[in-house]
Amino acid sequence: MSKYVAFNNDTALSYVQELGQFFPTDSELSCYEFGDGNLNLVFRIQDTNQRSIILKQALPYARCVGESWPLTLDRARIEASVLQKHGKVCPALTVKVLHHDSELAVTILEDLGDLAILRGELNQGQTFRQLGSDVATYLARTSFYHSDFYLSPADKKALVQEFTNPELCSITEDLFFDDPYRVHERNNFPAELTEQVHLLRQNSTLLINIARLKSKFFSSPQTLLHGDVHTGSIFVSQNQTKFIDPEFGFFGPIGFDLGSFIGNLLLNYCAHNGRVAEAPRRRDLHTYLLNTISTCLQVFEQQWLALAKEESRDLALQAPGFSEQFLQEVLQDAMGYCGTELIRRTIGLAHVADIDEIEAADKRLAVQKQTLLLGEQLILNAKSCRSTDDFYQLIISFVH
Amino acid sequence: MSKYVAFNNDTALSYVQELGQFFPTDSELSCYEFGDGNLNLVFRIQDTNQRSIILKQALPYARCVGESWPLTLDRARIEASVLQKHGKVCPALTVKVLHHDSELAVTILEDLGDLAILRGELNQGQTFRQLGSDVATYLARTSFYHSDFYLSPADKKALVQEFTNPELCSITEDLFFDDPYRVHERNNFPAELTEQVHLLRQNSTLLINIARLKSKFFSSPQTLLHGDVHTGSIFVSQNQTKFIDPEFGFFGPIGFDLGSFIGNLLLNYCAHNGRVAEAPRRRDLHTYLLNTISTCLQVFEQQWLALAKEESRDLALQAPGFSEQFLQEVLQDAMGYCGTELIRRTIGLAHVADIDEIEAADKRLAVQKQTLLLGEQLILNAKSCRSTDDFYQLIISFVH
Repeated sequence: MSKYVAFNNDTALSYVQELGQFFPTDSELSCYEFGDGNLNLVFRIQDTNQRSIILKQALPYARCVGESWPLTLDRARIEASVLQKHGKVCPALTVKVLHHDSELAVTILEDLGDLAILRGELNQGQTFRQLGSDVATYLARTSFYHSDFYLSPADKKALVQEFTNPELCSITEDLFFDDPYRVHERNNFPAELTEQVHLLRQNSTLLINIARLKSKFFSSPQTLLHGDVHTGSIFVSQNQTKFIDPEFGFFGPIGFDLGSFIGNLLLNYCAHNGRVAEAPRRRDLHTYLLNTISTCLQVFEQQWLALAKEESRDLALQAPGFSEQFLQEVLQDAMGYCGTELIRRTIGLAHVADIDEIEAADKRLAVQKQTLLLGEQLILNAKSCRSTDDFYQLIISFVH
Repeated sequence: MSKYVAFNNDTALSYVQELGQFFPTDSELSCYEFGDGNLNLVFRIQDTNQRSIILKQALPYARCVGESWPLTLDRARIEASVLQKHGKVCPALTVKVLHHDSELAVTILEDLGDLAILRGELNQGQTFRQLGSDVATYLARTSFYHSDFYLSPADKKALVQEFTNPELCSITEDLFFDDPYRVHERNNFPAELTEQVHLLRQNSTLLINIARLKSKFFSSPQTLLHGDVHTGSIFVSQNQTKFIDPEFGFFGPIGFDLGSFIGNLLLNYCAHNGRVAEAPRRRDLHTYLLNTISTCLQVFEQQWLALAKEESRDLALQAPGFSEQFLQEVLQDAMGYCGTELIRRTIGLAHVADIDEIEAADKRLAVQKQTLLLGEQLILNAKSCRSTDDFYQLIISFVH
């Protein structure tokens, strides 16, 4: 990594010009940095003819806390490689990698400037008809084609080694499964939530389930996960959906990505109770989110089972009825991980704008109480989930 | 690996003399090869004063089929490293590694010449009082100290990478979970078993369970397994038990080693029906084997739970009640893998001397029918096993 140097606008531009493959010769190029993340620089390089690309560079530390929290640059390799692997089996829904340089931790990506980040759009009350189905397709295809059903055992083992991601997994392990369930300085919630948080931490059945979910996160390399599927990792327009930012990618339980996504829709659902004053408007948005969740679950199940039926290459795993049994456990995991996402986004380090932007403290608190309760119930009921409908009905019963 | 050359008696002796650390200077040394395995050369080098060591060298092919079945020499590194890791947490029950050379695929081990291979001893009707408890101790300690309960997540991930063992895992994947359940030239059983084998292959519930067990073998890196715990991998005397030969070691489900061991005791149990004519003698041996299984299960559970209680370092996994729930699933896995061992040793490629040495064809066949049935029942009932007693009672109900 001795070649590494963090770019500024000028050096990023020079780097792209030297590569010379993205723009016609003699193009007049400009460059600006617009990253709002904490871990990376993000530059847009464009010519005067509407052509543009994105250059993303990993920083060797977390930007939010200065240079004091070092982070491996290897995550740039992981991110680019996950995008390439996922792009191979689901090109329509994965941002395209145009170039990668591991030493500089630089990846050049297609510019999705015509699309917008899903979280912001949802917070503005926008809806996207194809969202549930697109996310389901991405999760079904990327998870199936990197599973034991499809990969040869030797290829799978080599990929598990290649995508070993200890530093970023450690962030998830801490923030999802440890911090919220004990006193820790990283946690962040209002004093008014203290009693509910205290009760949650006293719930021994809940803690056993958290242990089970963490244990599975540690030791269940079922597929190459995106690893960070929240509504800030998805670009959307009315006719496109694109996944970005899989730097947390590793081989883990299939239900983790699915649960994280649904968890983020539920955070948005609850947030609307504090964001949208007009009841009919709020009802419409709630209906949209529930339909999206329902579609996502159904399409995921349908596509995954179809892939398992038609494309499985492992002889034993082709046993009729096994993929349905396997999928049931995936749904149980998804429900559990969905719950952990709701809880950690409410009382842990990393919150969501959906809730934090609610200005009125009493309304924000009411939303936080709801997400905490819903998260707890999802985790407690996960093991009894037998179908996508069970999953959906449990959600309905706690948000209606 | 360019330095690799297979030893003969002379070159093995010279190699040891050059190392010069195992015998006093000017010792008069002799050397002979006595390996009866198919994959390795095994030399004993001794002086005239009762001092001796074992030199084991991996061959780059499986000896039973000539040089036509190439096998990675990397398994020598894996074997030596597993012995070192297991020896660190359970020195009394693990053969001691004195020296290892990865390029030559050579490991020098303490000589266990005073002990004998367990399988041969059991077949001669010998019994060993401490066997069940010793094996339980080895399995509990080696599995706990290499699990997520104890290892830091980063250390665990690094070890999973280090012990990735695709070639030898592939042998297990094929022989345990594929071949017996379909027509394959590697299978080996008498024509009289054809109908029972056919019925077994038609049992869709059984095949779903086989898929589940294979899926877990693929994607459940709970601990650093020995990977080949049969009664030919254990040296015994009346007061010592030593594990050898973990070249199949990898990170897999904890129940695999435990189930394999119990499976081998059950193969021996059933074999006695064909080997031992005198009923009282047979009853004694049967009682001994059942007691050993019962002790092994109880001591394993007791030690594992005690270790989890006292030594767990992962915060979330310390949740009271979780280790008991986790262990229950380990027992279910063990019961399933135990069943696969019985079936594959009866109709697959690699049989056991316990059964194959029975000279009378009708008696041998009766034993094979029993092991096949017992194996099937263990697999079918595995998921409903809730305790060591459930496991034991199911065995009793089918062997009595």
